[in-house]
Amino acid sequence: MKPSIPKGTRDFSPVEMDRRNYIFGVIREVFYRYGFKQIETPSMENLSTLMGKYGEEGDKLLFKVLNSGDFSAKIDDEIWREKNALKLSGLLCEKGLRYDLTVPFARYVVQHREQITFPFRRFQTQPVWRADKPQKGRYREFYQCDADIIGSNSLINEMELIEIIDEVFNILKINVVIKINNRKILAGIAQLIGQDDKITDITVVIDKLDKIGLENVNAELLEKGILQDSIDKLKPVLLLQGTVNEKIGKLKELLRNYETGLNGISEIEQIFSYLSCTQLKAELELDLTLARGLNYYTGAILEVKALDTSIGSISGGGRYDNLTGVFGLEGVSGVGVSFGADRIYDVLDTLNLFPTTSLSGTKLLFVHFDENGLNYALPLLRKVRQNGISAEIYPETAKIKKQMHYADNNNITFVAIVGEEEIKNQSVMLKNMQTGEQKQVDMEALMRELKG
Amino acid sequence: MKPSIPKGTRDFSPVEMDRRNYIFGVIREVFYRYGFKQIETPSMENLSTLMGKYGEEGDKLLFKVLNSGDFSAKIDDEIWREKNALKLSGLLCEKGLRYDLTVPFARYVVQHREQITFPFRRFQTQPVWRADKPQKGRYREFYQCDADIIGSNSLINEMELIEIIDEVFNILKINVVIKINNRKILAGIAQLIGQDDKITDITVVIDKLDKIGLENVNAELLEKGILQDSIDKLKPVLLLQGTVNEKIGKLKELLRNYETGLNGISEIEQIFSYLSCTQLKAELELDLTLARGLNYYTGAILEVKALDTSIGSISGGGRYDNLTGVFGLEGVSGVGVSFGADRIYDVLDTLNLFPTTSLSGTKLLFVHFDENGLNYALPLLRKVRQNGISAEIYPETAKIKKQMHYADNNNITFVAIVGEEEIKNQSVMLKNMQTGEQKQVDMEALMRELKG
Repeated sequence: MKPSIPKGTRDFSPVEMDRRNYIFGVIREVFYRYGFKQIETPSMENLSTLMGKYGEEGDKLLFKVLNSGDFSAKIDDEIWREKNALKLSGLLCEKGLRYDLTVPFARYVVQHREQITFPFRRFQTQPVWRADKPQKGRYREFYQCDADIIGSNSLINEMELIEIIDEVFNILKINVVIKINNRKILAGIAQLIGQDDKITDITVVIDKLDKIGLENVNAELLEKGILQDSIDKLKPVLLLQGTVNEKIGKLKELLRNYETGLNGISEIEQIFSYLSCTQLKAELELDLTLARGLNYYTGAILEVKALDTSIGSISGGGRYDNLTGVFGLEGVSGVGVSFGADRIYDVLDTLNLFPTTSLSGTKLLFVHFDENGLNYALPLLRKVRQNGISAEIYPETAKIKKQMHYADNNNITFVAIVGEEEIKNQSVMLKNMQTGEQKQVDMEALMRELKG
Repeated sequence: MKPSIPKGTRDFSPVEMDRRNYIFGVIREVFYRYGFKQIETPSMENLSTLMGKYGEEGDKLLFKVLNSGDFSAKIDDEIWREKNALKLSGLLCEKGLRYDLTVPFARYVVQHREQITFPFRRFQTQPVWRADKPQKGRYREFYQCDADIIGSNSLINEMELIEIIDEVFNILKINVVIKINNRKILAGIAQLIGQDDKITDITVVIDKLDKIGLENVNAELLEKGILQDSIDKLKPVLLLQGTVNEKIGKLKELLRNYETGLNGISEIEQIFSYLSCTQLKAELELDLTLARGLNYYTGAILEVKALDTSIGSISGGGRYDNLTGVFGLEGVSGVGVSFGADRIYDVLDTLNLFPTTSLSGTKLLFVHFDENGLNYALPLLRKVRQNGISAEIYPETAKIKKQMHYADNNNITFVAIVGEEEIKNQSVMLKNMQTGEQKQVDMEALMRELKG
């Protein structure tokens, strides 16, 4: 039997973990610096919390956890005989695995509202699970890194999230474009073209403009029952060109009779104004075709793309005005951003941007020839570790070649060889594994070399 | 609808996360310093990997994940009609949630053996899931922190794990006793009393000596079919008193005809000898009643108890000679230790041992009265953050009382109040929230105060 893991899941090796920890470390450091506080929620939520929050398609992609004990006995015989998977899954399972971090966060806020001081700035970096068809870059278990501010309408929050995105990718050395739009503008556009009841359909389709092009977007809109006349009206909006100010100018003119749309425009203007005294490293672009699939967004929406690869969206977010309403807490507005750690990993990997010096890894390996050498080295090993330096001793008496091979394969920086000569002189033979250079040093010199 | 989470699971608030991160941080730092490398495995494993590894009881406690799609259609009608939960669960589910970190690690080692240089020192800190009856201190989702060395028979490894345990609890300021025993000694004892075919039953029962006392242990042994004569022979062994050397001396005498037992004794002696030049802070005790439930252990076994509370075992481990055998890789010996983060949390909480200074948390909040103050403060806020200091601005124009209340509730160290006067003087009014002290400072003085 050859062992394997479920499709769409992954093992992470020590090298991969180092790189992942680097990404998480950068993101967390920025979140902390911007005053966000970490929470965690359970991997399993009640299905009643999760179902109906991600659309019909999302419900199907939830991983459901079989009830413990005699789960079948509790199911009515008649229903059992029908053998209908959809109906049965709700009876066989009460719990499901977290699908994203946003819905559990909304549940958390409502459940613990008495303990929370609003505005609440929380971040969360945990895995989520989706029974999606696995493919390149898409996994069934992957990590999200989310920061949200809930309980404040101020557009200062949107500004801060854009600064956070800019800062994270600047530290990671990834060149990005941050695309911004506003759901209210999209609503205004839907009104303009006389299709305000079809706003969801329209946004879903125009979100694909980047990928499928204008022709296909128009075809899909027709398919969804949007009239040709409306599609013709939509075209000039989708093709608006120019600087941010030029786009805003033309939009104001187009949407002059639609209040919601104008509100969206003035929000965008305010965010740009707040950002005017910041030197963003990223490009910030007003993209009227940006829609983002999730239908809980109600205000600003954001999406981040890496410029030097074709990997696509590596971060996104937006404002939602009533995410907690479904759990019984109305009128609480929030805004959030989510970093896709796996996509960011792929970008760093593709562009060769991972730091060459590892954050972890053993600095020194003691190499010995016999029990004598081992006993001589043990107290030295302890002293090195007491000085906060990562060190090991090869645990067996083995050929020196084997021990050096171990050091090589584990990227250990130095080895300290302990032979008869060294024991006599109360020293070690210190070898730099990168340069090959070696010299006999006493304990004091050893510590100096390791700390240098 | 009042939102809730599945029983036996928990949300972690920012304060709890800080404390948990403190525990994980200490454990990881020590693991790294001892040359261990981190890996992660998927939350879901194939049920074929997990089933049969934790005994019959363990199989029942596995959380199973319902197959996606039309899961019922694939099940034979005849079997379906039987409605037998036990039989069905294997057909409804192919995947289960990780029950511990050891079995997935064994699976990992076999699956990736070509990429691994042995001895392999790995650590792993991830959640595990068990459908246990929830009770105080026992959860259905909890974290394990495991370090194992696999591919080496050397008892140096046992020594190092004991040093790691000692170091972790020394840094956490928890006084502990480390109990050590050896499965080979237990096997020798079973032979001595003429019950070597019942070794598993015997170890399971005597493991409870601490909790239920000698009388009840004897009663349980009788129940398991151990003869009274054997129980009488066992008694003096269980009640062996004295120093380590005294116990070892008596044991050698008792087990003089049983080779396995004598091997176990000499392993214990070697480990104590390796440790003789270390100053352990913890008490190290040879406990012949220590058995540890898991039946994959074959050599040294370890258990750690906190001395100043009744919380029980907070860490444990041991040597296993053939964990990878079940996945097709024979003859690889390993030894490991596992820290129970949740139990350690409870000990630190009970004994008030958490550090009072948090590792995270906002250092400075800008408080303002109007849009003017906000615009004045924004560039200052950016400068403070650029200096690596965690800072926020209250995002709304709100009453000063509300903003100060926010600072208080979030344990923010300083607030920088920005009024007309401060804007005129290009300064802020800096208030220390602990002492109440406040003074007008310019940007340079502000940075000095924050860094000091």
